[in-house]
Amino acid sequence: MSGETPAAPDSGTPAVGGVVLKTASAGVRYRGRDDVMVAEIAAGSTIAGVVTRSSTRSASVIDCEEKLPRRGGGAVQERPSVFFACSGNANAFTGVHGRGCVNEVAEVLAHRFGTGPENVLTAFTGVIGERFPVEKAIRAIESILDACATLEAAAAAIMTTDTFPKSTRRSVSIGGAEFRIAGIAKGSGMIEPDMATLLAYVFTDAGVPRDLLQELVETANAATFNCITVDGDTSTSDTLLAAATGRSGVHIDRTGRAGREAFSAALEAVMRDLAKQVVRDGEGASKFVEIAVEGAASVSAARTVAKSIANSPLVKTAIAGEDPNWGRIVMAVGKSGVAVNAERLAISIGDDLVAERGGVAASYSEDSVAAHMRGGDIRIVVDLGAGRAAATAWTCDLTREYIAINADYRS
Amino acid sequence: MSGETPAAPDSGTPAVGGVVLKTASAGVRYRGRDDVMVAEIAAGSTIAGVVTRSSTRSASVIDCEEKLPRRGGGAVQERPSVFFACSGNANAFTGVHGRGCVNEVAEVLAHRFGTGPENVLTAFTGVIGERFPVEKAIRAIESILDACATLEAAAAAIMTTDTFPKSTRRSVSIGGAEFRIAGIAKGSGMIEPDMATLLAYVFTDAGVPRDLLQELVETANAATFNCITVDGDTSTSDTLLAAATGRSGVHIDRTGRAGREAFSAALEAVMRDLAKQVVRDGEGASKFVEIAVEGAASVSAARTVAKSIANSPLVKTAIAGEDPNWGRIVMAVGKSGVAVNAERLAISIGDDLVAERGGVAASYSEDSVAAHMRGGDIRIVVDLGAGRAAATAWTCDLTREYIAINADYRS
Repeated sequence: MSGETPAAPDSGTPAVGGVVLKTASAGVRYRGRDDVMVAEIAAGSTIAGVVTRSSTRSASVIDCEEKLPRRGGGAVQERPSVFFACSGNANAFTGVHGRGCVNEVAEVLAHRFGTGPENVLTAFTGVIGERFPVEKAIRAIESILDACATLEAAAAAIMTTDTFPKSTRRSVSIGGAEFRIAGIAKGSGMIEPDMATLLAYVFTDAGVPRDLLQELVETANAATFNCITVDGDTSTSDTLLAAATGRSGVHIDRTGRAGREAFSAALEAVMRDLAKQVVRDGEGASKFVEIAVEGAASVSAARTVAKSIANSPLVKTAIAGEDPNWGRIVMAVGKSGVAVNAERLAISIGDDLVAERGGVAASYSEDSVAAHMRGGDIRIVVDLGAGRAAATAWTCDLTREYIAINADYRS
Repeated sequence: MSGETPAAPDSGTPAVGGVVLKTASAGVRYRGRDDVMVAEIAAGSTIAGVVTRSSTRSASVIDCEEKLPRRGGGAVQERPSVFFACSGNANAFTGVHGRGCVNEVAEVLAHRFGTGPENVLTAFTGVIGERFPVEKAIRAIESILDACATLEAAAAAIMTTDTFPKSTRRSVSIGGAEFRIAGIAKGSGMIEPDMATLLAYVFTDAGVPRDLLQELVETANAATFNCITVDGDTSTSDTLLAAATGRSGVHIDRTGRAGREAFSAALEAVMRDLAKQVVRDGEGASKFVEIAVEGAASVSAARTVAKSIANSPLVKTAIAGEDPNWGRIVMAVGKSGVAVNAERLAISIGDDLVAERGGVAASYSEDSVAAHMRGGDIRIVVDLGAGRAAATAWTCDLTREYIAINADYRS
């Protein structure tokens, strides 16, 4: 038997046994707030992660790709691991200098935390193409060796145009023992992750073999971060890292089905919670939109249609305008590239069936749908009538504020 | 030898010999303006066309697909042909009723113009999913049998959220003989044609065998309408039709290379002119943007990268904000799915090289690029350093007005 309950927020104590969080102000771009986050992860942990597939991925993403355990092996890290994140400058498309910055930060952190640079995984988020002021980051690192920050403070330190820090945590009990799992993320714009959202970190004090952790993170990622979109733009810097310290005494492996399923469910719950927070805080967002596609011939077809609707500026502006202009959903299904028989297509908004069998539904009431659209949470269900596969995408509306944020100043 | 000159605007006279244009007010959605356009094309002409690949394409698009000569045969139409367009209602996703409307309009037109319904090609543009008031269209058709409209009036009658009518014309002389070619189009929003833009019509008094006309239209379409995007949304109704009447006495065929090339060049010039007008009048557009991708491994790769940049909301809002935030161009190249070696990538804006070899260009001057971005015509050149193929995309910026047009009222 297993039970999952929200854990109480921490207050200066580590979120998860074996993980110490630290934040500092380097002043890279933002003033009057912390912009550097460091997670010190005890020796004996396992590390997993996924990064963006962008072909112009940043120096730190390429560095993570090389360092992350790719396959095989359940071995724990014999020395401590360190996650580093700095907000305000993406250190992307910065050439030799950018790679040098990553190496310098990794070497300084490795030296300070008694490990090797191969165990330091960095991330940078902010403007692309600007020279990274590495000396400021080094100075900040030196100042936080003995610090200890809350999960919320760590979430705040990695923000760029985010309007609120994104964190979540769970406690899971399995047969009398208990483990914790907690995560932080940042998002806002340039959000259609092709692997993970801009930056996300998940920590657990369960013990999980490295290859199993990697597999479970990839599976959960496909159903969470890779299902969200704010603007269809994919960052150069998307990085999701996970650490399992084993400090709870709960050990997860391939043989114990109940434990593995409980862990997998908690991991996916934490990642889905973070992913949805990223959407709710999408640049300029005024509404949260869930798009469920059912009756598809394959999961891949369902995902393609869901993303086509979620990325349509005409669907997103109709939602911003609270206009039940469902014909734009028909358009977005049609342009997706998935073969669809319009005669079998059915569309619901909220609890109302709006279209079926190639035309408007007999029961359609524009007033009822308009009432749903005035709410803050919009749900669209599309049944393709072609099979049994389903997928869900999460997005936000497209508002004047998105334009203001991205046209009026550099973000 | 051939020479091509812009033709003078007509004034009540037919734009092209063998074609009579007519417009009328059916009052389908708009008041105080014409919303029906009919082109009567003389017997002895050839007809070609392309329509959207959307899987939720409208009843009239499906009807056109069935009627358009698909392959083979250079035969002319023995009876007149009729093009019909109505603005304000897309008659898309309107089921059996929608198909009935198309058939009824075709039958009435066929009867009035002494031809068969198989020679009537219809198009509808406007809101998707609303019942089409066919009786209003029929009444309008009855009123215009003897009318004769200018090319400009025909262009105005097919407008929806367009802010200006889009027409263009050319006269081409070949060895002492002359032919004319003229076209109209409408666009505005839901514009990333997957075949042709929302509605476009091209007329010529050259004589062109049907299969050659179809081939030349498809080739020109790939390099013109299929290279534009306003918002990445693909309409259910995109239709491009072409008619060649032969009334000029100039006959184009596969054997006469000079004539074929002159005709092909004029056709592409007319279609490019119309496509660019659609972009300039994109919903909310304040700037016209040309994106040239060079040094690609294939034309297909170059087009994919160009469209990825042209559809990026972050690139488009930066252009609206006149912000030389070229890192967003790097991002859009990276997310395109085309394999790119960032170390070989070079980016220019206007006449300025901004990035090369994986980083900012040594000569980069933000002031100089900012000055270019304050203009109304923006040019971005991306060299992928991977080959010799090239492609160009045209788009507009993404402004608050796009949101206002699409969120504040139903369009």
